[in-house]
Amino acid sequence: MPKIKSIHHVAVVVEDMEKSLAFWRDALGMELHELRDVPAEKSQVAFLPLDGAEVELVMPTTDDSGIAKYLAKRGAGMHHICLQVDDIVGMLSQLKQKNIRLINEEPRKADDGKQYAFIHPESTGGVLVELYQI
Amino acid sequence: MPKIKSIHHVAVVVEDMEKSLAFWRDALGMELHELRDVPAEKSQVAFLPLDGAEVELVMPTTDDSGIAKYLAKRGAGMHHICLQVDDIVGMLSQLKQKNIRLINEEPRKADDGKQYAFIHPESTGGVLVELYQI
Repeated sequence: MPKIKSIHHVAVVVEDMEKSLAFWRDALGMELHELRDVPAEKSQVAFLPLDGAEVELVMPTTDDSGIAKYLAKRGAGMHHICLQVDDIVGMLSQLKQKNIRLINEEPRKADDGKQYAFIHPESTGGVLVELYQI
Repeated sequence: MPKIKSIHHVAVVVEDMEKSLAFWRDALGMELHELRDVPAEKSQVAFLPLDGAEVELVMPTTDDSGIAKYLAKRGAGMHHICLQVDDIVGMLSQLKQKNIRLINEEPRKADDGKQYAFIHPESTGGVLVELYQI
């Protein structure tokens, strides 16, 4: 049986990265591990790791990406929760059997080899859930 | 210096607890540790712990609570992220010095003795952030 292990990260969509870092890094004192442009996702991402899970701040760098449209429609705030799973192929198969609507029917591969897939908010009660196998 | 340690939980506001459990517990296979009525918050809460952090599903049990109004206005989905801190009094003082708007200027005490306080989404970029000292 595939198993959800932990919360890997919580992603927050932001309008202004410097203003956001003024809160998360400067006021809360969280460590900014990396600030990276992710051209494939047309965004800039700040990684702020904690024990066990991290906060990721995502700022769209174009107007036409999915995350830019989300920001325009819903405003800044929490975007998705990412759960680490030990067997993503098995989990996606289990979810399909339970008639859960998937955004990615098959795992996608990030540049670093990690596999991920998104579950549609329609099946989760309004939460965009990402699955991640490291 | 007060320090943010980890993500303690992510809270999801739900319309229908059984439907939500059909996803989180039955489809994803996460363990339902406890399903508890919390009269003080006019809600029913499901606790689904993972390694290091947990998912909490919160269903309003009246129409007049803050969470019921949130649900009516914004719909089901992620509600807040809770960060564990080692010194909540020190952290609130640090946030005040940085002109961060707090919902709770002083820590509140839960029935089990844990101290918590909420930071206003206006100062966080749209995210309701809870601080928690265990």
